[in-house]
Amino acid sequence: MEHYELIVIGSGPAGEKAAVKAAYFGHRVALIERERSFGGAGVNTGTLPSKTLKETALYLSGKYDRGLYGIDRSVVQTSSLEPFMYRKNYIIRTESEVVHRNLLRHKVDIYHGVASFLDKNTVHIAGDKEIALTADYIIIATGSYPFHPDNLPFDNRKVLDSDSILNIDHFPKSIAIVGAGVIGCEYATIFSTMGCKVFLINHSSSILTFIDQEIIGHFIDQMRQDGIDLLFNKDIATTEATADDTLRITLTSGEILHVDMLLFAAGRNGCTKDLKLENVGITTNKREAISVNEKYQTSVPNIYAVGDVIGFPALASTGMEQGRVAVAHIFQTKDIEQLSKVLPFGIYTVPEISCAGISEEEAKEKKLDYCIGMAKHCDMPRGKIMGAQHGMLKLIFDRQTLVVYGVHIIGHLATELIHHGMSLLESKATLLDVIGNVYNYPTLHDLYKYAAYDGLGNVAGHKVKDAAAVS
Amino acid sequence: MEHYELIVIGSGPAGEKAAVKAAYFGHRVALIERERSFGGAGVNTGTLPSKTLKETALYLSGKYDRGLYGIDRSVVQTSSLEPFMYRKNYIIRTESEVVHRNLLRHKVDIYHGVASFLDKNTVHIAGDKEIALTADYIIIATGSYPFHPDNLPFDNRKVLDSDSILNIDHFPKSIAIVGAGVIGCEYATIFSTMGCKVFLINHSSSILTFIDQEIIGHFIDQMRQDGIDLLFNKDIATTEATADDTLRITLTSGEILHVDMLLFAAGRNGCTKDLKLENVGITTNKREAISVNEKYQTSVPNIYAVGDVIGFPALASTGMEQGRVAVAHIFQTKDIEQLSKVLPFGIYTVPEISCAGISEEEAKEKKLDYCIGMAKHCDMPRGKIMGAQHGMLKLIFDRQTLVVYGVHIIGHLATELIHHGMSLLESKATLLDVIGNVYNYPTLHDLYKYAAYDGLGNVAGHKVKDAAAVS
Repeated sequence: MEHYELIVIGSGPAGEKAAVKAAYFGHRVALIERERSFGGAGVNTGTLPSKTLKETALYLSGKYDRGLYGIDRSVVQTSSLEPFMYRKNYIIRTESEVVHRNLLRHKVDIYHGVASFLDKNTVHIAGDKEIALTADYIIIATGSYPFHPDNLPFDNRKVLDSDSILNIDHFPKSIAIVGAGVIGCEYATIFSTMGCKVFLINHSSSILTFIDQEIIGHFIDQMRQDGIDLLFNKDIATTEATADDTLRITLTSGEILHVDMLLFAAGRNGCTKDLKLENVGITTNKREAISVNEKYQTSVPNIYAVGDVIGFPALASTGMEQGRVAVAHIFQTKDIEQLSKVLPFGIYTVPEISCAGISEEEAKEKKLDYCIGMAKHCDMPRGKIMGAQHGMLKLIFDRQTLVVYGVHIIGHLATELIHHGMSLLESKATLLDVIGNVYNYPTLHDLYKYAAYDGLGNVAGHKVKDAAAVS
Repeated sequence: MEHYELIVIGSGPAGEKAAVKAAYFGHRVALIERERSFGGAGVNTGTLPSKTLKETALYLSGKYDRGLYGIDRSVVQTSSLEPFMYRKNYIIRTESEVVHRNLLRHKVDIYHGVASFLDKNTVHIAGDKEIALTADYIIIATGSYPFHPDNLPFDNRKVLDSDSILNIDHFPKSIAIVGAGVIGCEYATIFSTMGCKVFLINHSSSILTFIDQEIIGHFIDQMRQDGIDLLFNKDIATTEATADDTLRITLTSGEILHVDMLLFAAGRNGCTKDLKLENVGITTNKREAISVNEKYQTSVPNIYAVGDVIGFPALASTGMEQGRVAVAHIFQTKDIEQLSKVLPFGIYTVPEISCAGISEEEAKEKKLDYCIGMAKHCDMPRGKIMGAQHGMLKLIFDRQTLVVYGVHIIGHLATELIHHGMSLLESKATLLDVIGNVYNYPTLHDLYKYAAYDGLGNVAGHKVKDAAAVS
């Protein structure tokens, strides 16, 4: 039986980075992947496909450039599916190959098949050939799969989950999306940008509660303005196919929707079913996820779990770091002791949302003596050049020390801009540090300076009316 | 005679920020502007217009999106000038008004006319009405104007400078640009992106010498690839108009060019001619620029000078800060003691260039034990989604301590991405800090992490072949 120092199960972002890092540091590593395509949800069904569809929707629709230049370039109508899917398919194909090459280049041994535990050091692989491997350490990075409630007739054609939505056979005229979490909101805004009528159904009225709710308020306004029908505090009662090949959806509220497709995006469960965790005594929660400590160790010390299989936040960025941190702990590589304390959230909706540090709700809960400063994209010269009509940056800071506690951004480039905010948080920068910075002009990073001046004005009480004016 | 605590001469970026800041802190301020339109070169002839033309050229030409989505949106042909100038004119109009409102809102008294010194506390204004004002302090922020060599027949129609290029009456089929500095390179790439044949003439072969020359090497390759004809180590000998309304330009090398227009962009001089500086004993150098100390004081202690009128780097971003620092020194506001030590350079060419910290040339000159790490846009998932074919980030760091010394970026979003690098420089971050950061995925900030891994590989000597593979 082949023996390894480390077996990694799953080649998604968390598994790939773990395997490659261990190999990079000279250890003997095997990676087991059940699919033919490498990269897990990060490459194949989640992160990159939806982010590419977002860029595609913005390009084809001309949403962000309409009217800016006097003459508009044509938009691409999408009664045909092909232009919508073209780049997404390209990215999946090429990125899966990148992951494969990365594993090969680092001399990670690759096995295809379904992994299950025989004991805490032995993994069985059911693939084209059946085989068992042993290892000192095992990292579970099997990811998650879309949860299917019993009452919906999933058929991969009209009633879809967040995997099968990527393989639809025609572009919908209208779509009902259940679940206003990250995935539901991303697809709602992508389809809406493409000109599709979107109904977004959510069982409660508070959404994305881990984000500052003022930012979410702006996001909700934006979705409404873009014509998305928000059906909050509602659920689906029944779904039936009609003679004209549409779906008739009856909500618990009694409302009836006629739509072309239904996307269920309320929750994903850990891919743990096939692992035979009972053979090693690891238990899972009701979302079939595995619990770990801060080093990503499970209850069995030589078995680790990273990425979506451990649940929230289920982001590729975080998963990769978890993989690296687990390997650092296993092999004592000393380069990363633990996950960075400052983590960004990035939501690739239209508009984008990103944040780091604490929200206003958390500041209130912790009874901090905080104050806020804001700046709008449309007041920045760079924002005007790009025609940004919406978008804002919000700083939360200590009223006495002016130390920045949280940064929250909605609008153009939010997921890129947040990284400067993370640096501010890490260095415990104050508003005075921010206004002392020199930013390229014109850039959207000016938002930081304007928000800092706005914050100073708020603290001093001699605020001029318009935040953009102060600096 | 009206008396003020501060008189600011010029409403460009440096003057505006100085006047507004002093007023914000409660001081009585007058601002003198010779033009009807506010904002100086930042708004009217320099920064914002050229940056807007760059975005316009990218939009109309589809340069960055061609072929990405299977179906292309149409491009806009520019035999007509209107779409090219449309947004630029919009931005000038609106931003000039923003500056005006900002001054009014802060109760800065505005005077229109040409300012000159009567003595060190008295300024004469020649405008629609003639008037003299006194002040405790005076800040000169009069900017710069395009230098005109004697041998070129400037006519604002065929032979242009960087001001008159904004008011051309037809779109050129071909253009010769003299001077491969920031302005010359920006316009060369803008016109080239628009499909215009560009000849870029420079008296020497080394250009933009304040930027890392490996980055500049990539930039030069890119310009060549885009069809720009680089005529380095050459000058114009003679220029003559021909019967068919083109220009026949003979170079010192004997080559002859037939072009539609000639843009001279080699150098700007300080706007000091009308100030009657001799009345206060301030002298200027051969570029008509004023010398100042680190607090932006001239040789006369109550008279300061900021912005382009003091010469290099002549960037709006830096000018604004100089204005703020001068006011901080005058009124002891204590919020900014001196200009931030980490300053970004941003060059809005196609592709963009931005850098902070030391270049490889400087590292060599200082005999530092340095090493480099690189990452390419095209290897980043975000870069692939946006179809970035070129572009790279280069880190220069200490081989022993791994502390980052310099960050140099060419390609998509360079002028935004640099700010994270500036934070690294300011906090004296090491490569290990960089790889410990969690970046949103996919974003172009991944470049930092990949470049850091590449750098570690270079130091350790066990580098794998492809930088993108390491992480």
